[in-house]
Amino acid sequence: MKPALIIVDMLEDNYGDRSHKDREEERIVPPVRDFLKTCRGISVPVIFACDSFLEGDFLFGGRMKPHAIRGTEGARVLHDLEPESGDTILPKRRFSAFFKTDLDQTLRTWHVDTVAVAGITTHFCVLATAFDAICHDFRTVILEDLCAAHKREIHENTLNAYRRSAIHPLLTVATSSEFLEEYRRTTAALR
Amino acid sequence: MKPALIIVDMLEDNYGDRSHKDREEERIVPPVRDFLKTCRGISVPVIFACDSFLEGDFLFGGRMKPHAIRGTEGARVLHDLEPESGDTILPKRRFSAFFKTDLDQTLRTWHVDTVAVAGITTHFCVLATAFDAICHDFRTVILEDLCAAHKREIHENTLNAYRRSAIHPLLTVATSSEFLEEYRRTTAALR
Amino acid sequence: MKPALIIVDMLEDNYGDRSHKDREEERIVPPVRDFLKTCRGISVPVIFACDSFLEGDFLFGGRMKPHAIRGTEGARVLHDLEPESGDTILPKRRFSAFFKTDLDQTLRTWHVDTVAVAGITTHFCVLATAFDAICHDFRTVILEDLCAAHKREIHENTLNAYRRSAIHPLLTVATSSEFLEEYRRTTAALR
Amino acid sequence: MKPALIIVDMLEDNYGDRSHKDREEERIVPPVRDFLKTCRGISVPVIFACDSFLEGDFLFGGRMKPHAIRGTEGARVLHDLEPESGDTILPKRRFSAFFKTDLDQTLRTWHVDTVAVAGITTHFCVLATAFDAICHDFRTVILEDLCAAHKREIHENTLNAYRRSAIHPLLTVATSSEFLEEYRRTTAALR
Repeated sequence: MKPALIIVDMLEDNYGDRSHKDREEERIVPPVRDFLKTCRGISVPVIFACDSFLEGDFLFGGRMKPHAIRGTEGARVLHDLEPESGDTILPKRRFSAFFKTDLDQTLRTWHVDTVAVAGITTHFCVLATAFDAICHDFRTVILEDLCAAHKREIHENTLNAYRRSAIHPLLTVATSSEFLEEYRRTTAALR
Repeated sequence: MKPALIIVDMLEDNYGDRSHKDREEERIVPPVRDFLKTCRGISVPVIFACDSFLEGDFLFGGRMKPHAIRGTEGARVLHDLEPESGDTILPKRRFSAFFKTDLDQTLRTWHVDTVAVAGITTHFCVLATAFDAICHDFRTVILEDLCAAHKREIHENTLNAYRRSAIHPLLTVATSSEFLEEYRRTTAALR
Repeated sequence: MKPALIIVDMLEDNYGDRSHKDREEERIVPPVRDFLKTCRGISVPVIFACDSFLEGDFLFGGRMKPHAIRGTEGARVLHDLEPESGDTILPKRRFSAFFKTDLDQTLRTWHVDTVAVAGITTHFCVLATAFDAICHDFRTVILEDLCAAHKREIHENTLNAYRRSAIHPLLTVATSSEFLEEYRRTTAALR
Repeated sequence: MKPALIIVDMLEDNYGDRSHKDREEERIVPPVRDFLKTCRGISVPVIFACDSFLEGDFLFGGRMKPHAIRGTEGARVLHDLEPESGDTILPKRRFSAFFKTDLDQTLRTWHVDTVAVAGITTHFCVLATAFDAICHDFRTVILEDLCAAHKREIHENTLNAYRRSAIHPLLTVATSSEFLEEYRRTTAALR
C-alpha cells in the first residue's frame, strides 16, 4: 500500500468561533493533529484540500454565507493543525478535492494507490472526495474517527451506508488505527 | 426554471432478474416511466446516464462482479423505460453522470439551470450525480420517490442527510410532484 | 512500448464530397486504412475520435457550418476505413480526443504508455489531441504521413514546429514506418 | 464583449538569464507590462497562468530540465510584470491554463465571454490555452504582438495557421491594439 492522506476543509472560516469544544467538528481536531504527525513520520504524503471560493460564487446563492474566500485568512488551514512545508495545500473550488484540480495526476506521479480521507463534513466534502478518489482508481478509506458532520447522527448514518458496499474493499470505512495497522501489515510484507 | 432530468443507472444489468417486484429498485420503475412521459410532454430534456464499464475495470477489483460492460446489451437502458429517440443516452464510466463526460457543457448549451436526479442507487450514483450537478453550478433536486437503494433505510438516511443542508435550496430533496409544481409555478410566472 | 492509435475526425461529414482525390485530406485515406490493418494485426488498440456536435453548438457561431451532429450518419467514421467491432468509437465534443472524455482513464486501464495520432486536421484536432496526450503523461507521436490539413503548407509548418521541441522525445513527429520500427525494436527487446 | 486576459508562463525560471535582450521572449516583456496596465485600467481581469511542475514530473523525462517547480521562486511571475493583488495567479500543471484547473468556471462566474491570450511560447502553452478557451465556449484572441516562441519563424508560422481558420472569428489572431479597438467599439455600443 502506498497511501496519501487528504484532510478536507479543516479551515479557519469553517471552524469560526472555537469556544464550543463539544461541537462535533471540534472533537476531531486533536486526533487529526496527532494522525498528521504519525503520517509525516512514516512519509505518507499529507494534502490539505481547502475550500477556496470566489466572491459571488454560485454556492453562496442559498443559505450558506460567503466564507473561505480565495486568498483570505479564513481560507487557510486551521492553525491548530500546524501544516508543514512538506505538506501540500490544495485549494479546491467545490466539494471534492479532485473537482477541477490536478490531484489525481499528482497522486499518480507519487505512485499513490490508496487515499485516506478525513476532515469535514462527513456527508459532503469528505464523501465527495472519497467518491472521486475511487472514481480515479484509488483504493479509498474514510477514516471514521477523523471526520465529522455537525450532527452525529448524519455522520454515523453516512458511514454506515458505505461500510459494506458493493465496491468493498475498494472503498472502506475504518478507524485511523485500523488504517495504520493495515498499512504496517502490507508494508512489512514487502520487506 | 429550465430543468433537465437525469435518470441514473436504470440498466438491464443493474436490474438483472426482474421477478422480485418487491425489491426497492423495482418499486421505482413504474413511477419513473410515468415521469419520463410527463417530462417529454413539457419538453424537459431526458438524459439516461448509464454505467459503461471496461472489462478489467478497477471497479471490479472488489466485491462487484463485471457487468454493464461498454457496448453490451446489459449496459442498455431498462426496456421498461422505453427510451425515445429524443432522449440522450450518456455512457458514464463512474458514479457521477458528470465524471469525464461533457454533460455540463451540454446542459449549458441547452440553457439548463436545474437538474433533477432519479434512479439507482440513492447513496452512490444518484448522490454523486447530484453532488457534481451542484458543483457545476446547477440547482439540483433529488427526486425522492424516483430513486432507490437496495435497503430502504440507506435510501432514507441518505435523503434525510441532505434535506435542509447548508446549501439549501440549491440542493433540495423533493417528490416528483413537488418538483413539477415548482416547475409549473416558475414557468407560469414567466408568461 | 505499449501504444494505442488515435484516428482523429476522419468522418463522413468532414470528408463530404469524395470526388476530389487530390485534396490533402483524401491523400491520407489509403495509407491510414493500411495502417489500421497493421495495428490490429499486432494488437495495437485503435480509437476513432469523432467530432460529435450538438445542434446550436458554440462552435457553429463562426464560419463553420453545422456538421457531424451527434447521432447522425455524418458523424460516423469514414466507411472507407472499415472500422471493426474491436475498435473503439469515441465521440468527442471539441478538438481533442481527451476533452471531456474518459480516454485518459481507458488508456491507463489498458496500460498504454504511448499514443500515436493520425487524421485531420494537423493543426487543429490532431495537434490538440497530441497536446492532451502528452499532458496526460503519455509519450506521443504525430504520424506525419497519416495526417493532413487542407493546405500542405500549414500541415508542414505545424509538423516542423514540433520536430525537435523542448519536450522531445516525449513528443515526436515520425512517419508510420518509423513508428512501427521503433515499436518492433522495443517490443523485441522485451522478449 | 466581456474579456479576460491570460498571460501564459512568463515566469522567472522560463526567462532565466535576462541579459540577452534580443531574445524573442524578451521582446514581449515591455509591451506585455504596458498592456497589463491598460487592462487593469479598464477592469479587464488579468490571469497569470504559471507552469507549476512537480519534482520527478513526467514532462522532465525528455530534453527539458526540471524548472518551475511548484512552490519555488522560479515558478513565480516575472518580477518585471509587477503582478498586483487584484490579478489572479493560476498555477497550471501542463500546457493549457485550463488543464485540470477551475479557470473555465471562474471565467463563467465573472461572466467573461472572450479570452485574450499572450505570453510564451506561441506554439505550445499559448496555443494550447487558446485551443482550450475555444473548447470551453469562449471567444478567443491570440495577441500576436504579445506572444513569442524562441524562433521567430515558428511564432509566425503558428499565427499564420490560425488567422483565417474554419472557426474564425470565434478564434482570431490580432494585435493588442486591434483587440482594444474592438473592445472599445463593442463596449461603447452597449452604452
